Parts: sequence; structure tokens; C-alpha cells
Amino acid sequence: MLVAVKKPFTVKIDQDNGQLSWRCHVLSVKQFKRRDLDEEIFPEAENMLTMVTMVGKVGYLSGKVIALLFYQPSTRTMMSFWTASERLGGSTNAINYVQFSSVSKGESLPDTIRTVGGYCNAIVMRHPEVGSAKIAADYSPVPIINAGDGTGEHPTQALLDLFTIRRELGHLDDLTVTMVGDLANGRTVHSLARLLTLYKGIRLNFISPSSLRMPANMLAELRGQGVVPEEYDHLDKTVVAQSDVLYVTRVQREYMTDAEKSMDNPFVVTPETMSWAKPRGSMILMHPLPRVGEITLEVDEDPRAAYFRQSEYGMYMRMALLKLILRRE
Amino acid sequence: MLVAVKKPFTVKIDQDNGQLSWRCHVLSVKQFKRRDLDEEIFPEAENMLTMVTMVGKVGYLSGKVIALLFYQPSTRTMMSFWTASERLGGSTNAINYVQFSSVSKGESLPDTIRTVGGYCNAIVMRHPEVGSAKIAADYSPVPIINAGDGTGEHPTQALLDLFTIRRELGHLDDLTVTMVGDLANGRTVHSLARLLTLYKGIRLNFISPSSLRMPANMLAELRGQGVVPEEYDHLDKTVVAQSDVLYVTRVQREYMTDAEKSMDNPFVVTPETMSWAKPRGSMILMHPLPRVGEITLEVDEDPRAAYFRQSEYGMYMRMALLKLILRRE
Amino acid sequence: MLVAVKKPFTVKIDQDNGQLSWRCHVLSVKQFKRRDLDEEIFPEAENMLTMVTMVGKVGYLSGKVIALLFYQPSTRTMMSFWTASERLGGSTNAINYVQFSSVSKGESLPDTIRTVGGYCNAIVMRHPEVGSAKIAADYSPVPIINAGDGTGEHPTQALLDLFTIRRELGHLDDLTVTMVGDLANGRTVHSLARLLTLYKGIRLNFISPSSLRMPANMLAELRGQGVVPEEYDHLDKTVVAQSDVLYVTRVQREYMTDAEKSMDNPFVVTPETMSWAKPRGSMILMHPLPRVGEITLEVDEDPRAAYFRQSEYGMYMRMALLKLILRRE
Repeated sequence: MLVAVKKPFTVKIDQDNGQLSWRCHVLSVKQFKRRDLDEEIFPEAENMLTMVTMVGKVGYLSGKVIALLFYQPSTRTMMSFWTASERLGGSTNAINYVQFSSVSKGESLPDTIRTVGGYCNAIVMRHPEVGSAKIAADYSPVPIINAGDGTGEHPTQALLDLFTIRRELGHLDDLTVTMVGDLANGRTVHSLARLLTLYKGIRLNFISPSSLRMPANMLAELRGQGVVPEEYDHLDKTVVAQSDVLYVTRVQREYMTDAEKSMDNPFVVTPETMSWAKPRGSMILMHPLPRVGEITLEVDEDPRAAYFRQSEYGMYMRMALLKLILRRE
Repeated sequence: MLVAVKKPFTVKIDQDNGQLSWRCHVLSVKQFKRRDLDEEIFPEAENMLTMVTMVGKVGYLSGKVIALLFYQPSTRTMMSFWTASERLGGSTNAINYVQFSSVSKGESLPDTIRTVGGYCNAIVMRHPEVGSAKIAADYSPVPIINAGDGTGEHPTQALLDLFTIRRELGHLDDLTVTMVGDLANGRTVHSLARLLTLYKGIRLNFISPSSLRMPANMLAELRGQGVVPEEYDHLDKTVVAQSDVLYVTRVQREYMTDAEKSMDNPFVVTPETMSWAKPRGSMILMHPLPRVGEITLEVDEDPRAAYFRQSEYGMYMRMALLKLILRRE
Repeated sequence: MLVAVKKPFTVKIDQDNGQLSWRCHVLSVKQFKRRDLDEEIFPEAENMLTMVTMVGKVGYLSGKVIALLFYQPSTRTMMSFWTASERLGGSTNAINYVQFSSVSKGESLPDTIRTVGGYCNAIVMRHPEVGSAKIAADYSPVPIINAGDGTGEHPTQALLDLFTIRRELGHLDDLTVTMVGDLANGRTVHSLARLLTLYKGIRLNFISPSSLRMPANMLAELRGQGVVPEEYDHLDKTVVAQSDVLYVTRVQREYMTDAEKSMDNPFVVTPETMSWAKPRGSMILMHPLPRVGEITLEVDEDPRAAYFRQSEYGMYMRMALLKLILRRE
């Protein structure tokens, strides 16, 4: 933004000496320290929730323009960022199908980013290619927020997941979190598992079809952080009973073995599953949405079913990030 | 909107005892009584027209976010609601091709509505399936405005049609309204005919190809309300001469018989047709637009040609509905 | 806008007696006189740049709604106008794929324009057909800004190009401007060449493949204005050395002869090309973007590479035009 600004921001996400802020861009969960979350981001998200409840909208981003540049359309993520920007008093420019636009004329991502960065104050980008958010940040004259880059990262989803747990259960240390579904391809569960290792006394259980297990490098990374995950091939009653958080993701049937398909689907959460779990106030059921059958509709009435509240918390989290990033300008 | 709100609104559109307001959702013309129109909605739409003329924009929806969720793209209807929301000071989030978004991942309508309803204060929805607006309302934590659900209802169109007649002719009782074109499939004419039965001394004429006559159940419903429609197979000179309102809709040629096709199209309004009609101030020609030849271009210069004013009145009507619905929050 | 307004604006772009303002619509570069640019438009664009730098946003268009009606999608042009409108305090309604909307139902352009013109205060239109902007203006009740009509005109691009030269080099008289690439089909270079003839002492060089030379009628038009262009078939060192402005556009390879394709592409600007050119402050390299290889990435670091600043200047130019046009209402 502004002709005077000729150089892109520099983001130092691997820096570890505590001097540099995470606030240049939001590219990866790896750039956050526990202190950033506990002292800055979660309290700001709480403020946003209170503010929206009281007055609906404030003027923190007055005079700022936020571009939503979605190379992959996404109704929910786009609306979440759009409402976040609007409730902060920002102006929002949203293009939901960039692939048919200047990309179709062969324009490179760096050129698009430098052009759009000349018009606006921040860019929220979704792109199908892993690493594209980092490339955008390397060239952008304004902050980049990664709203998902292929099977890479979706850091704001992991942050809102953590905010949901903290708000619903009151703490993030000493939790047993059980992740269910496609753990091989789900960027959501990888990012959430990484963020959880910032906290103490975390126990992780991974429940998946054999073909969709958590990748070996993720398991190794988690063990390196002192977390020793346990793996299961079905929604085990004892595991559910021990869980503070049951985090369910989609499993596409084509990934299941014939044996798994022939079983009564062992990864679907039903009221019976919930009957094994801890009581209200001690346990929540989460899902990043959209779901396609992994949680039956009867479960929606259960007060522990937190997934629609989880998606709403996402708006407050995105408001907090936008405010914290753009206040530094 | 807001985590505190967990239950969907309940809409009672069949309730008849006068206790319940129409203001939960706008799903169907059936939910309106004459008093709602005459005492609340039309005066508010007049206020909106005056306000836009004087200052362009007011702050009634300041702090509110309106989501436009169009599963079928529509330039005109989307722009009408978008400008309505903006001129009330609201923020607007518009997705014009929802079918390629989370629906493509298999998300159900109730889940989408609960998610989007967590971000915004009202949802304007267009959807190709009959009954989808009612389903959305059953699950939504915020008001739903039906902007067309397939061949079902398009209530805001019928309301703006009635507002147009009232504003241009000064009254809604004792009218002769002649509807022309495809009366079999047009949700517009069905909804307008229903609304007109709220008024006294209404005479309805239906002019259509034999294959596109007003459905028998609609005829029965109207007779049950004390209106006895007359049907014709061409734009009859005497009928035109008696009409206060000539309401034309599209006829797709594939629905016509060979005999009808071979005739000089008997459903097209020309300057000659208008020469049979009552004078300016006593008669208007309406069309819900888009037209594709049912009214020739020469007719546009006739002061009785009200269709472009009609579409503009639509913005004021939608402003009135948004204001009345969201003021109750 | 407003029911009271029944007649379309009348634009007189061929009028030459100095009485009529250019401010009805922006359809073609032909409607501008040097005085309009020097005394009104460029100073206003400078004001906009200063204002955005200082405060980000002002309220000149408060209460106005700007419709962006793009029959051809364009991320960059749409975002440029969208941010321009927002930074002026206007509300913006953007439809990026109009061809799938009411046009798919067969609605004519005049009907769409009259409908949308009933909701908003100005229409920015991109359309694939030459002459469509003029047709829109003939029927519109509100100002039309042509954001590109096929191979016809793209006047705001030419205006921002001229503003870029003026701002970067300090003057528009006595310039040597060298245009490179596809000069046959590029509406950009045609419009820019036309505008430059408003200034004194202009020398034009045209460098293109033989099959993509500037059309004969354009050459004749320029000669009629007292400019005698020189034509070249490669990026000649002496020509580059004499140029104040090197303006590069895309060349699609299918237009080149086999001989040209077999050469090391003689129309690509590299650091070596730039080594022949005048120093910083006396020379700039421009491109309307998107580029697809005509300027190598190493050149981006050269301070004379002005193309990203050029795209940013576009936002200020569009703000100036919107403000000047809508202030007259």
C-alpha cells in the first residue's frame, strides 16, 4: 500500500529469540509461541466476541481495505473473513474465483500480489498450492493472511480450534484430545496437533482407517515435542470416555479398505458415542465443517456438540488477527 | 448471530389469530395480512424512497451484517438487495455462486445456514429447490429472507409489485388486474394473485397459451377467496381496455402450440396494445423483468410503462423489509 | 437513480466547442481535452494519492452506491475500482460474472443498465463487445464508466498511464515514447497514443512483430495530429537509448512468424535492455499488466521499472474520476 512502500515485508517465522513479533504475516502455526496466544491473540478474540455482542461493529480498521483473494472458492471461510473485516469497520474487496481472472491470462502470483498489495492494506489469500502463502509474503507490500494453501497450512483454523477449546473448557494444559477421521490428508488436524504441543500435559489419540493414519513425520515431530500419541483403528469406548476433546474430520469412503467399508462405519459419532463421553462442561465435540455424515444429526442437540459455536468463534479469531496485524501499520 | 443464541427462530406463518408478527422471516406471501402491508410495510417503503431521494443512505443497519447467499446467480435481485442493505448502513457479504463452494463438498443446507447465521444478522437466500427457504428458517439463528426458492415463492417480488401498483395508481382495492404470459410456471404471478386477494373488489383476468394456463389449484384457491378469474387465449382488446394493471411475464416459445407459434404472437404488447388501454394515471404496464420480447422496445417511451420504476421500487421494498425485520433484534 | 429520473444522461463526446464537460460518462479517451486532464483530472488524482497516504479513506461518495458490472471477470481492474470506491466512502456492489446472470436469461444490455441504474449512482462496466459502453450510456439514468469494451476502449487505463508518466517524469510535453509488443490488438497502446497527441513535441516509436504492427488507420490518425511515428521490428539499442518511456505490452506467440519465434525473442526487456536506457529520473519502463515474460523478473529491482507503481496510480486515477463525476449530481 502506498507508492512510498517499495519493499515487501520480511517475515521471520523461524526466529526463536523472542525479539521478533509474529505480526508481519499469518502464514503458519509454526510462527506462534504460547505467549503470543495466551497474552495477545486469545484475549483479543475475547474482546471481539464481547464487542460484537454489545455493539456489532467497531472502527479499528476504518480507512483500511482488506482484499479477499480466493483462488479456491469457499463460502464459509470467505464469509468468516468478510464479516470479520466489516465488523472491524474495514472495507472488504472479495474475489471468490481468482483462477478465472488474471491468472487465466498467465499472470504470476508475485505480480498479482504486488498489484493487489498496491490497492489494499492486507490480503487474505486461499490458494490450492502448498507454499503459495509464503511466496505471496515474499513479494507482498502488505500483510498476507493464509486462509489455506492446498494441503499445506490453514493457520487461522487451528487458532480458532484452540480458542474454542480454551473458551469451552477453560484451559489448554492437561488435555486429552482425540482426533478422528482422515488424519493423513487433513491440514486441520496437523496444525492443531502442532499448536497443542505448546501446552503442558497434552495427550493425543489418533483414530483413523489404517490407510489414513497420521503421517510418520508428524508422529516423529510430536514425539520430539514430548507428546506420545496413541493410535486406534476405531472409535474406542475407553478412549472416548477419557477425551476432553473429540475432534472429528471427514473421511472420504474411497480411502477406506473393503473391510472398513463393510463394517458399520466405525468413525461416525452417534448419540451412543456421546453416551460414553464426559459430561457437559468437561468435554466437547468439534468438527471443522463441512461434515458429510461423520456426526449424525441427532448429536446436534447435545450441548457438548460445539461445532457451530466453533465456526462462530472463527469470526472473532479472524477479527483479532486482523486488528493485531493492522494496528502496527 | 452470537454464541448465546443457540436455538433457531420459530416462524408461524399459518397462525391466524393476529398475535404473531410476520417479522421472524420472509418466506411466503401467505404470512402477510392486509394490515401488515398497509400499516407497516408500504409506509416504510415510502419512507425509504423519500430517504434515498434526500440523502442516499441512513444508519438503521449500522453494525449489522447481511449475508446474500445465492445458490443461483442473479445480477438484478442480488444488486437490489445489496444496494438496499448498503443504503441502510449495513455491511453486505455476497456470494453469488454458492453451488461451487461448500455445497460442492457435500455440506447440507442446514449446516451452511447455521454456520453463516453465526457470522451475520440476516440471510437473504436464493435457492433452486422449492421449500428450501422454509428448511433454512427451521435451522437459522437469524432471520431468513426468501429471494426465490425454485418454482416456489419469491415473496419480495410480489410485495414490490403490489407497492408499485399502490404508488402508481394510488389504491389497491377495486382493481382489474390482467396477467399475461406463462401463468403455469410463473411464481411471480401466483404470489401476486394471492396477495391481491387481501384487497376488495379485485377482478383478475388471465391471458395465456392454452398449455400455460393458471393451475387449477390456484384458480380454486382464488375462487375460495371470492375472486372469480376470467381466462383468455389472447390479448383481447376489451380486456386490455378494462385493465388497471397489465402484468406481462415471459412465455418460452417451446411451451406454445404450433398454432400459437404460427400466429403473429398474440401475447406481445405493442404500442397498438397500449392504444386500447386506459390513459396515464389510470393504468400501468408491469413486467418482473428480464423481458425477452414480450413488450416491444417502442413501448418503453409510454409513460404507462412502469417496469423500470417497478424494479427500482424493489430496492425500497427490500430496504423496508430489512429495516422492519432487523429493528426487532 | 431515483424514480424522478426517467431520461438517460446525454453524452456529447464529439462536441468540440468547449461548452460541454466530459463529466457525464467516461467512455473514450476521445472525450478529453488537454485542459480537462491538466486542470481537473491530474490534480484530483494527486489529491487522492495524498489523501490515501494520510488517512486511507474520505467521505466524498458517502451515500452513493457504485455498481461494478463486469461481463468479463478481471481481478485487477475490479479490485482497483472497488478500492477506489471504498476509499471515497462509497458503497460498492460488484458482480464479476454477469454473463451467467440475467444475460443468461436473455436480458438485453439496455434493460440491465436501466434496472441497475435504478439502484445505484454510477455503473462501472466491462463488457466483451466493442461499443457496448456507448450503448449502456445511451440508456443509463446514471453515469457509465467504461472499464474496457472488448478491443474498443479502456480509457481509465490510458488516463492512468499518462498520470504515471507525468508523476514519474514531471512533464508530458517533449517526450519520446516507445511502445513495444502487440500494437495491432492492444486497445491500451491505441488509447495512450491518442491521448499523447494532446501534448507538444511527442515522438512515438512502435516496435512490434511484422504481423502485429500498429493499424494503418491509427498511424494515419496520429499523422493527422502532427505526430510521425517510426516503426521497428526489434528492440533497437538506439531507440531504447532515446526513449523517455518504454511501454511494453504482451505478444502472444501465435502471432509471431516462424523467423521471429526462432530468434531469441527480440521483444523481451532484460537488464541488458535497461542498460541502454536513460538514467533514473529521466526514463521509466511501463507495462499495463499482466505480463507473461515480456519483462524478465530481474528487471523488477530496477528503480526505472514503474509497472507496479503504475497499477497503484490507477487506483488514484479511478478515485479522481469517480469523485469528479459524482460530485456533479
